[in-house]
Amino acid sequence: MNQIERIGVSVDKDLLKKFDTFINKQGYPNRSEAIRDLIRGALSADQLKIPKAKAVAAVFIVYDHHAAKLGEKLISLQHSHVLKTISSLHIHLDGHNCLEIIVLRGRVDEINKMADNIISLKGVKLGKVNVIATE
Amino acid sequence: MNQIERIGVSVDKDLLKKFDTFINKQGYPNRSEAIRDLIRGALSADQLKIPKAKAVAAVFIVYDHHAAKLGEKLISLQHSHVLKTISSLHIHLDGHNCLEIIVLRGRVDEINKMADNIISLKGVKLGKVNVIATE
Amino acid sequence: MNQIERIGVSVDKDLLKKFDTFINKQGYPNRSEAIRDLIRGALSADQLKIPKAKAVAAVFIVYDHHAAKLGEKLISLQHSHVLKTISSLHIHLDGHNCLEIIVLRGRVDEINKMADNIISLKGVKLGKVNVIATE
Amino acid sequence: MNQIERIGVSVDKDLLKKFDTFINKQGYPNRSEAIRDLIRGALSADQLKIPKAKAVAAVFIVYDHHAAKLGEKLISLQHSHVLKTISSLHIHLDGHNCLEIIVLRGRVDEINKMADNIISLKGVKLGKVNVIATE
Repeated sequence: MNQIERIGVSVDKDLLKKFDTFINKQGYPNRSEAIRDLIRGALSADQLKIPKAKAVAAVFIVYDHHAAKLGEKLISLQHSHVLKTISSLHIHLDGHNCLEIIVLRGRVDEINKMADNIISLKGVKLGKVNVIATE
Repeated sequence: MNQIERIGVSVDKDLLKKFDTFINKQGYPNRSEAIRDLIRGALSADQLKIPKAKAVAAVFIVYDHHAAKLGEKLISLQHSHVLKTISSLHIHLDGHNCLEIIVLRGRVDEINKMADNIISLKGVKLGKVNVIATE
Repeated sequence: MNQIERIGVSVDKDLLKKFDTFINKQGYPNRSEAIRDLIRGALSADQLKIPKAKAVAAVFIVYDHHAAKLGEKLISLQHSHVLKTISSLHIHLDGHNCLEIIVLRGRVDEINKMADNIISLKGVKLGKVNVIATE
Repeated sequence: MNQIERIGVSVDKDLLKKFDTFINKQGYPNRSEAIRDLIRGALSADQLKIPKAKAVAAVFIVYDHHAAKLGEKLISLQHSHVLKTISSLHIHLDGHNCLEIIVLRGRVDEINKMADNIISLKGVKLGKVNVIATE
C-alpha cells in the first residue's frame, strides 16, 4: 500500500448531484472510490494505445466442442506463442457449445495478434478480447 | 452557469502521479477539469443504456457518390423518420468517395434504428454512429 | 449440427483482395469461416441492444487482495443476484493484485447491473465486462 | 469502379435464417450488400490498430459557448497541428450548449493525439472521436 493524498476538486452543483445519483445506483461506497475507478479506467485505456505496454487479457470464445481437433489446436496455439497463457476456464453452455476464457499476459500487440489467431480458428463461433493494461 | 462546489477526493500518491502525467499529456489545464470530464463521460455512457434517453448522434458514413440514387434515398430517409435530422456535412474524400456526417436528435433507440437504416443503404461502404446522451 | 447452404456473394475485386490478405493474416482457413464469424459477430452485437436477450458475460476485475473483506463481498454479491454465476477464475498478478474473472449467465440488463455492482466494490481497481448474446 | 467477382460461401441454415431476419430489419437490399459492409467494417477496424494508417475522423464535442475563449482555442489548435482539419459543423443544442463536429484527416496516431487535445480543452464537457481507416 502507499500513502494517500487528499485533493480538492471543483464540480458544479448540477453535475455533482447527478454524479451522486449515479454512484449510489452503481453501489459505490463514496465519491473517492468512484473517482479513483474513473481515473484508473482512463489510464488503462490510454496505455492500450501503446503496442508495447504490458497487459493482461481475457480471450472469450464460444465454440462447438464437436469441431474437429479444435481443442488440440487451441492448446498448440497457446504453446507456440511468445506470450504466456496464464490460465483458462472452460464452461459447457449447452449440448453443442462451450465457452472458453483464455487469460493471456504480455504486450498489447502480441496479445491482439494471438487473440486474432484464436478467434479465427475453425469451429470458433464468437470471440471477443478484453485487454487491461497493467502499467 | 451554476454554483461550484469543492469536494475532497482521496487518491493514493502513485495513482495521482500517473494521473498528473496523463492530464499533462492530454493537455488538461488542471485536475478538476479532467475529473469533471471523466464524470460527464461516465454519466453519458450510463444514460445510453436507457433506450428512451434523449441523445444527439453523428452518423458517419463513407459512400460512393456514383451509387445510384443514394443521395435521394438519404434525403428521403431523413424526412421519413420521427426523429429530427439537425444538420449534415458532406466532404469529398477522393474521386469516388464522400464522407457524410448526419447529425440526429432524438431517443437513443430511435437514433440507433435510423442509423442502422442509413448504414444499410446500397452504396454506403462504411458506417459508424456516435451517440452522446444529453440527459 | 445442421444443414449447410451455399450462397453466392458479389464482391468487387479490390475489396476481395484486401479481404484475402486480412483473413490470411488472422489465420482463417477459408473465406466462408471468416464470413460466418462476421455474421455471428453482427448478430450478437445486435442482440445486446435488447435488454431482455439472453447472454453470458465475463466480468473481469483487478483488485487488491489485501482490501478488507472484498472476497466475502464478492461471494455474497454472487449469491444475492437473480442471475447465476456459473464460474470464476482467480489469478495472482503480483504481490498485491489479483485478476478475477466471473462468468455470469442471464439477461443482458441483469448482467450489466450485476457487473456495475461488482466493479463498484471498494478495492476493485479496474473492471470491464464482456457480454456475448447467446440468442 | 472495378470488376465484380462472385464467391460462394457456406453457411449453416440456422445461421442464414437469422442473418436474413437481421438484414431485413436493418434494411439491406440483399445479402451481398450486407456481407460487403461486414467485410469493410472488419478491414477498417483492423487498420485502426496501425498507428500510421491513413484515416479520417470526426471529433464530436459538446461545450458551453460561454466558456472563455474556447472558440479561439479550438481554431488555433486546428491550425497548429500537422494534420488537416477538413471541415467543422457547429450546432446549437440549447441556451448554453453547442455541439461541434470537427473532421480531421491524417494518420491514426496523429488524429488520436489531436482529438485528446481538443477534448481536454477547458469548457469542453463531453467528447468522443470516431475514426475510420481509409486504407
